[in-house]
Amino acid sequence: MVAQIEQRRVSGRPSSATTDPVLTYTFDVLPLQRGGQLGPVTLAYETWGTLNAEGDNAVLITHALTGNTHAHDAEYPDDLKAAWWNPLIGPGRPFDTSRYFVICSNVLGSCYGSTGPPSIDPRTGRRYGMNFPVITIRDIVNAQRRLLKHLGVRQLAMVAGGSIGGQQALEWAVSYPELVRKAVVVAATAALTAQALAFSEVERQAIMADPQWQNGNYAPGEGPRAGLAIARMLAMITYQSEEGMEKRFGRRFAGYQGTPAPSGVGTLGERFDVESYLYYQGESLVKRFDANSYLYLSRAMDLYDVSEGYVSLEAALRRICSKALFIGIRSDFLFPAARVRELAEQVRAVGGDASYVELDSPHGHDAFLKEWQQMTNTLSL
Amino acid sequence: MVAQIEQRRVSGRPSSATTDPVLTYTFDVLPLQRGGQLGPVTLAYETWGTLNAEGDNAVLITHALTGNTHAHDAEYPDDLKAAWWNPLIGPGRPFDTSRYFVICSNVLGSCYGSTGPPSIDPRTGRRYGMNFPVITIRDIVNAQRRLLKHLGVRQLAMVAGGSIGGQQALEWAVSYPELVRKAVVVAATAALTAQALAFSEVERQAIMADPQWQNGNYAPGEGPRAGLAIARMLAMITYQSEEGMEKRFGRRFAGYQGTPAPSGVGTLGERFDVESYLYYQGESLVKRFDANSYLYLSRAMDLYDVSEGYVSLEAALRRICSKALFIGIRSDFLFPAARVRELAEQVRAVGGDASYVELDSPHGHDAFLKEWQQMTNTLSL
Repeated sequence: MVAQIEQRRVSGRPSSATTDPVLTYTFDVLPLQRGGQLGPVTLAYETWGTLNAEGDNAVLITHALTGNTHAHDAEYPDDLKAAWWNPLIGPGRPFDTSRYFVICSNVLGSCYGSTGPPSIDPRTGRRYGMNFPVITIRDIVNAQRRLLKHLGVRQLAMVAGGSIGGQQALEWAVSYPELVRKAVVVAATAALTAQALAFSEVERQAIMADPQWQNGNYAPGEGPRAGLAIARMLAMITYQSEEGMEKRFGRRFAGYQGTPAPSGVGTLGERFDVESYLYYQGESLVKRFDANSYLYLSRAMDLYDVSEGYVSLEAALRRICSKALFIGIRSDFLFPAARVRELAEQVRAVGGDASYVELDSPHGHDAFLKEWQQMTNTLSL
Repeated sequence: MVAQIEQRRVSGRPSSATTDPVLTYTFDVLPLQRGGQLGPVTLAYETWGTLNAEGDNAVLITHALTGNTHAHDAEYPDDLKAAWWNPLIGPGRPFDTSRYFVICSNVLGSCYGSTGPPSIDPRTGRRYGMNFPVITIRDIVNAQRRLLKHLGVRQLAMVAGGSIGGQQALEWAVSYPELVRKAVVVAATAALTAQALAFSEVERQAIMADPQWQNGNYAPGEGPRAGLAIARMLAMITYQSEEGMEKRFGRRFAGYQGTPAPSGVGTLGERFDVESYLYYQGESLVKRFDANSYLYLSRAMDLYDVSEGYVSLEAALRRICSKALFIGIRSDFLFPAARVRELAEQVRAVGGDASYVELDSPHGHDAFLKEWQQMTNTLSL
């Protein structure tokens, strides 16, 4: 498997979801921030472009909570639905594949090819489920570090991501300052607010209260369908904004019944369009994502505090020697723009080369997956 | 029963939770806005002060979603926990019981003594459960109208309430303009936003996805404990604000384990204080409130649109001939202050005598149950 990966990397042939979506790299063991270790660890990834001889033109793209390796689709580069950051990646685009070796790795703990709760625990021969250890953003970044070393990357020209991906970009800049020339932290902060922690725990309780969750020991393809759908419904609200939802849905009634409600029981009285939309989004995630992975990754977001292990937040931020671009979103209430800006100011206050740009968007937290022109302009600064 | 009520009213003896908490009035049948009828209908209520001979010094206080008749405690008037609007009611207070006959009625659909889903359906001899009809704010107000008539009230000096209580105050001013001299609409708007509808439906799905809900046919005292607790956890977030929760909880870890999580399964890693708080709030509601009532009343909030049945919003608001005081809360994201202010402006635009005051509070939607000094100042305007 490793030989195949190497061959692909050396040849520089672009990857595409259609033909050969995901490569993997497996290493023996990962020491964990909260103690103990995990191994073997597999990371799934995709790359676009070619690594130069110096090994210093790599760009690491870090995905969002339920995201995957497919940030770009080389075969359908103009199809917005073919890959999640498609318009930002490719020749002549901000993440320019004619100059950079662009890597997107599925995070540790996910269910898209990397080691996570649905993986087989070699000690037992059964799926980890809730025996998977608590992982942190630092663990996720440390696993990525192993992958980059394996790929021959000596320095990252850039690391960029939004939301939990932004937490990773920040963590890279703090944990491995000498390896990062520029960090792009989108819609992420030094640590979640109490309100965001609260939403996150409601989502997890909805999953774990579903009897089908069975303490995480559900069979592959089964599991807490209603609980995960409800969790996703709530998450989708937090990824948008009052303003954006009002524009998109208002109080319009649903024109058709569409996806059934997670509980199987519809609303009392008329169904609003926004309800149909949420049912659909819930069901879509159930079809594609693992509930235990959701628990572990959302918890990694909660537990993230860039200052952990340092004497202060300032001490952590003082380590950053890369350029740092912080991008906030005006209407984001999960990672409020004011807090993203404050983080940029804190980095500058300790001598860092930080800048802050705010996307003027009604789309809330998800704007970094929607505002292509503003993202392109900002990343080209 | 009616005789007893009359005796109490005529004597003017103040009610108190400790000695005799709740009176009731039962009438035969209530035609419903969405068609059909409901009957017999019982409303629970409390009163303080004395109705004058003209029957025009009455004040109707309308409670919040899971509220009850006990807005004031005559025996413990200074105890904040003894009654939910205690500091605003009493001699010399904004709702002055030495001048006004103050009434607080438990809403139709609730579980605190009024007819609702937990009541016995006389047609079957069993609890209504989900056979209870869909009810609206207009139905709730029409039932209150019957109670007031029974009590001899000819005109309301004031009707005042927050949240779903504010919707009722607004509906009173529009449905019965000739009966209302002043309407105080706190933290409520002409209709919920799409975001608020969305939160509301996530809460209901959490309840209905709980197998213990059993399509609403749970035994008294049993029911969807986990689902209702999760719904309440979410609701409690929407009643507060990012700013307020940050001040109160931040990222502090819980000093003790406290209330178990609704699912019975605790968090991964450390437990945050805000999580313990939400578990406690969830469990508290489970102990005191009926899940089916929650479904019906939260749906009544969703379905409320003051313009329903009129040719336009303007046509509805033009009916108001009382004074109207609208109170928004700076940090409220469930009923955003800007939308409350807009409603006041719309009433003024059609010739109404409307004013707007904004509470400067970090407490979010719940500020109308917390900001006693600002509420007192505003109500005394």
